[in-house]
Amino acid sequence: MKNKCSAEIEPIFTHTTFVRVRYSETDQMGTFYNSRALEWFECGRTELLRAAGLPYARLESDGFFLPVIEAFVKYLGRAKYDDLLQLKTSMYLEGRARIKMKVEILRQEDNKPVASGYTIHIFTNRDGRPVKPPTFIYEKFGIKD
Amino acid sequence: MKNKCSAEIEPIFTHTTFVRVRYSETDQMGTFYNSRALEWFECGRTELLRAAGLPYARLESDGFFLPVIEAFVKYLGRAKYDDLLQLKTSMYLEGRARIKMKVEILRQEDNKPVASGYTIHIFTNRDGRPVKPPTFIYEKFGIKD
Amino acid sequence: MKNKCSAEIEPIFTHTTFVRVRYSETDQMGTFYNSRALEWFECGRTELLRAAGLPYARLESDGFFLPVIEAFVKYLGRAKYDDLLQLKTSMYLEGRARIKMKVEILRQEDNKPVASGYTIHIFTNRDGRPVKPPTFIYEKFGIKD
Amino acid sequence: MKNKCSAEIEPIFTHTTFVRVRYSETDQMGTFYNSRALEWFECGRTELLRAAGLPYARLESDGFFLPVIEAFVKYLGRAKYDDLLQLKTSMYLEGRARIKMKVEILRQEDNKPVASGYTIHIFTNRDGRPVKPPTFIYEKFGIKD
Repeated sequence: MKNKCSAEIEPIFTHTTFVRVRYSETDQMGTFYNSRALEWFECGRTELLRAAGLPYARLESDGFFLPVIEAFVKYLGRAKYDDLLQLKTSMYLEGRARIKMKVEILRQEDNKPVASGYTIHIFTNRDGRPVKPPTFIYEKFGIKD
Repeated sequence: MKNKCSAEIEPIFTHTTFVRVRYSETDQMGTFYNSRALEWFECGRTELLRAAGLPYARLESDGFFLPVIEAFVKYLGRAKYDDLLQLKTSMYLEGRARIKMKVEILRQEDNKPVASGYTIHIFTNRDGRPVKPPTFIYEKFGIKD
Repeated sequence: MKNKCSAEIEPIFTHTTFVRVRYSETDQMGTFYNSRALEWFECGRTELLRAAGLPYARLESDGFFLPVIEAFVKYLGRAKYDDLLQLKTSMYLEGRARIKMKVEILRQEDNKPVASGYTIHIFTNRDGRPVKPPTFIYEKFGIKD
Repeated sequence: MKNKCSAEIEPIFTHTTFVRVRYSETDQMGTFYNSRALEWFECGRTELLRAAGLPYARLESDGFFLPVIEAFVKYLGRAKYDDLLQLKTSMYLEGRARIKMKVEILRQEDNKPVASGYTIHIFTNRDGRPVKPPTFIYEKFGIKD
């Protein structure tokens, strides 16, 4: 039986946004440089959090930081300068203290996969020390603390 | 019994090099931005391949490309602007066609871990099509084809 | 008397577009890292050329490249992560062979100046050799060859 | 008669350092992306300040920041992945409150010019407000306050 309660199985929020490949993001292989995927993952989660009513800039001004503690990327296809990319981001809670953001990147023109992967985040204070997630996170997503 | 044949177990080459954290690599959290780890991984494998007598620039001019098909990073500690980082890179063959580069990043000053992870690469031609690895790779590392 | 014919005085095309400051574009001073301005200038001219009916990707696939030969930036104010920036780009012909792109970057929220400057471009072929601008450039902007 | 007192004419310190072009710094034109020049300028001034006994990291921990207020780059030649670049940096005082860093970038292999230009800096506090330069700057370079 599938464990439907697992935070892994059901995202608590999903969001789709778009970026165009910049020339600065290409490399001499003629596709995007590998590290850019992590920068696009950031665009995906920034827009997801905004859409969820929790803009990350506000989280930081409230003293909560969400550094990346783990990242994984699978490179699935090429993307050239000026290609429009679709970023589908899904947010999961992992236990009480971690957030996982899964991202799928597709080329808008032909729906071909470009990259997929995830980042895992913890809550810290300004100095990088782990802290309990703010209770409004749980409230926002209707999760009992 | 340890499986000594597994490419995973014994690296075919290891190398250590150094980079300094650039100001352009920091972010407003006061540590390095997460995607920079993948750029440092590149510095590690560039220097490993040079030390192994296989400079990557020459591989490309011979028509062989090694795009990243998978990347993983664990973020283990902070690194500030101007910190000297030690990059320990280990090269593995995965089967006949893939190369894995494991990297450990330590802060040179106090030997504290900063990040670790790997990238997996395949051989392709200029157009991104997978090709058989060049035989000189096997010869170079004394591996029977 | 003002020389109204000077390419410097009247832009041949102007365009406004927007970017949000990414976290990857900030640095430990808490504002954007200086080189990002040149990456935003690129966003400005990419969208100007698209709006003018000359998408740069098509120029390149037609064999015409527009490398930057000179760049200038004045830094006028801070911009933080997630600030929405307005990029006002103006295109000028300089003589027969050069294009100048002036860019003004303002913070959308309060219209405060963030940076201004320009890039100068020449037309080259794929190998970086200067070539005569394609005649459709002149036609497009109603300039007599 | 040449004005020998002008801060423009005589640098107060010069330094040469080296960087290798990273793959992440190339773009699909096959040379380095234009904004990287400003990142290399940073490498040049970081090493100049260290050689002068004024490591920039220490300046910041003493509360003095040197943001860029103006930048200029002339692109003079191509540089490919793995090319070794020579960065010749010269520091000038402009009046009492500004520092100018001129940089020349040459390809080490054949001494061909790659780029040249400058950045202008002011002293600020942590919040970006202009402050008087620390007196130890003048002392360090034997300049009467």
